[in-house]
Amino acid sequence: MKEQRIITLTTDFGLKDSSVGKLKAILYSSLPYAEIVDISHAVSPFHIIEASYIIKNAYRPFPSGTIHILGIDSENTLENDHLLVQMDGHFFICADNGILSLIASEIKPDRIIRISNINTSKTPFPELTFAHIAAQLVNGASPESLGESISNLRYTQETEPVVNSEKDQIIGYVLYIDHYGNVVTNIKKRFFEDTAKGRNFLITARAAKFREIYSTYSDAIDFSLQKEVREEDGKKLAIFNSAGYIELAVYKSNHSTVGSASALFGLSLRDTVTINFS
Amino acid sequence: MKEQRIITLTTDFGLKDSSVGKLKAILYSSLPYAEIVDISHAVSPFHIIEASYIIKNAYRPFPSGTIHILGIDSENTLENDHLLVQMDGHFFICADNGILSLIASEIKPDRIIRISNINTSKTPFPELTFAHIAAQLVNGASPESLGESISNLRYTQETEPVVNSEKDQIIGYVLYIDHYGNVVTNIKKRFFEDTAKGRNFLITARAAKFREIYSTYSDAIDFSLQKEVREEDGKKLAIFNSAGYIELAVYKSNHSTVGSASALFGLSLRDTVTINFS
Amino acid sequence: MKEQRIITLTTDFGLKDSSVGKLKAILYSSLPYAEIVDISHAVSPFHIIEASYIIKNAYRPFPSGTIHILGIDSENTLENDHLLVQMDGHFFICADNGILSLIASEIKPDRIIRISNINTSKTPFPELTFAHIAAQLVNGASPESLGESISNLRYTQETEPVVNSEKDQIIGYVLYIDHYGNVVTNIKKRFFEDTAKGRNFLITARAAKFREIYSTYSDAIDFSLQKEVREEDGKKLAIFNSAGYIELAVYKSNHSTVGSASALFGLSLRDTVTINFS
Repeated sequence: MKEQRIITLTTDFGLKDSSVGKLKAILYSSLPYAEIVDISHAVSPFHIIEASYIIKNAYRPFPSGTIHILGIDSENTLENDHLLVQMDGHFFICADNGILSLIASEIKPDRIIRISNINTSKTPFPELTFAHIAAQLVNGASPESLGESISNLRYTQETEPVVNSEKDQIIGYVLYIDHYGNVVTNIKKRFFEDTAKGRNFLITARAAKFREIYSTYSDAIDFSLQKEVREEDGKKLAIFNSAGYIELAVYKSNHSTVGSASALFGLSLRDTVTINFS
Repeated sequence: MKEQRIITLTTDFGLKDSSVGKLKAILYSSLPYAEIVDISHAVSPFHIIEASYIIKNAYRPFPSGTIHILGIDSENTLENDHLLVQMDGHFFICADNGILSLIASEIKPDRIIRISNINTSKTPFPELTFAHIAAQLVNGASPESLGESISNLRYTQETEPVVNSEKDQIIGYVLYIDHYGNVVTNIKKRFFEDTAKGRNFLITARAAKFREIYSTYSDAIDFSLQKEVREEDGKKLAIFNSAGYIELAVYKSNHSTVGSASALFGLSLRDTVTINFS
Repeated sequence: MKEQRIITLTTDFGLKDSSVGKLKAILYSSLPYAEIVDISHAVSPFHIIEASYIIKNAYRPFPSGTIHILGIDSENTLENDHLLVQMDGHFFICADNGILSLIASEIKPDRIIRISNINTSKTPFPELTFAHIAAQLVNGASPESLGESISNLRYTQETEPVVNSEKDQIIGYVLYIDHYGNVVTNIKKRFFEDTAKGRNFLITARAAKFREIYSTYSDAIDFSLQKEVREEDGKKLAIFNSAGYIELAVYKSNHSTVGSASALFGLSLRDTVTINFS
């Protein structure tokens, strides 16, 4: 038996069409013992930054050598080369459209191969080519044999917050809104702490204001009080989320009962989030 | 090759975020030969009873020894211990939040372990701890080695219907609304039959009334009539569903065409359903 | 180790209820080494043509011998026999409700077995019987041993477009609307080319008109122009899609930004699409 290899899928295909099934069909045909794991097929159509956030948070606990197929905006055009990227012990197969921005802002790729030795004939379903690239890789092809090595991702998107010259203000934005409606900013814990240097702070996002950042959702709840009197479901709070970003949340957020953070705070993707230090 | 072990997942994570992928990453890293099966990730956020109904109906046909991870409202707080429960030949890893109520109302747990010997350090993603518990269990740890044995689930929710003192009325409620919009009550077939003792009955839920309970959807259709004249799509009926509960349904229910039972009957979760006998 | 066998699932079960989990539980109990692949569980309830389009486009790249379970409208009634169909090197288990129409319009089945030697006792969850049929097949039962051979699918649906007697007009309809909101017609590339014989043409679907059909989405974009001035996101175009059908699309279609084709063109399932030749 061949060694098992994990291949993950992150796409904007949705789960109704035949696309996910077709992609898996091609993978299983070439690689009967592969373990195929769906990360997400619910990325908003063509939403590179959303996909970038999802894959950044999911890839690392997979075993080293895992192959991640990123099927968003993958048509192979003059401006959108197909890539095989080796980075942090993992492989990523994707188009050069900025989808690796959030990972590559922290970790330098070891190798970037622009795919040229695989028939990427024009097709309205370019991700099928990604499956063939993955199959060749698992079956022993070296990355270099699949195309030419290049030195940089052509396209990355600036995703870092900025600090003013007085060093007393961070200006960030809403990077992602999660399933519960909680609002993830682009401000990372380390970036925050390096700037804060222990000072008091005030986070402002539209009308919402926060002066504390918790480590878990329930840290915001005072369990010494009786369930009936303590503020609990629907309480607004800021936390460092499990991905390491500042998140503006609602305790036990539920769109249809206590309401979600994004709705309650009136926040959408790319809206500004400011932190002032004093 | 290690023996294969099935681990199922039931959560309110949704399918867009990286959460499901991350959980699987940790499981596959520790247990490369595990078979991970998604039961549902579409439980309404923090909806314990919905999750309880889903897992109750799904777990039994899995092979004995299957491990079921229930990731809903799992933050480990003073009031929400993490548990490993052995029951009916299966293992359940969850928080002590009532999620096993519907199973435990019928079957006594063999063992309840309050997890204490696993680092459940505070985190906004407590289900990752559940993955580590599952991994230890599959790799041979005894349940007792993971924590202390306790005698009862601290928290269970009353889910049984009630019978009046004259024994001529059952008062139940809407337990679950399924994908087709059909309305599942908390009244089980056996409970109904034990109370009915063969008498005539009338089921009332808001304006909807039923005097018969079928065994399949199509039993309600008279196939001796021509397709054009017989009442068929959209016909309202009560059945004993495949989970053994009384369900108020619409034949070939479809929200966008004939309409769904929940919409047509105006029924929501927890609404009252009454059965009168005569 | 038994040879691995792939079993695919295409249903209208949705992903919230326990149904998919239960079906997999039964399959894994009988067939611990099966590879179960979800094609789609998001078929609109009881929508045979939608399911037919999805399975037609997904099944072929799977390895020969793959078993496809089609769980839509499967109650075993006098008018809805359960079938095992061998066709194009694959097995299909489904009800005789027209779900194989789109495949069977192109490929003649090799064998059609009406299931009779398996206990298909009446149940509100008939797809569980399909799992038992699949298990018997994988475990070596011959198709003939499961029921009686019949010569035709009883029920197929007419899905071909029509050509007028002057051979200068094709009248088709909207067969499927995909995840991106793009509109798939029932007019296949070969059918179109055989009728067109190189003539100029005009595709009309409500107010939308097209005089060209591209091979990929990006073929419609003029990359020699600067990104800022060329028409791009939201551009309306017709293409031969990866399934071989004429599709009316919007470049980088997204319901919430540039809008989807179905919304922009005002097209719904079964709406007429006309092609005039001159």
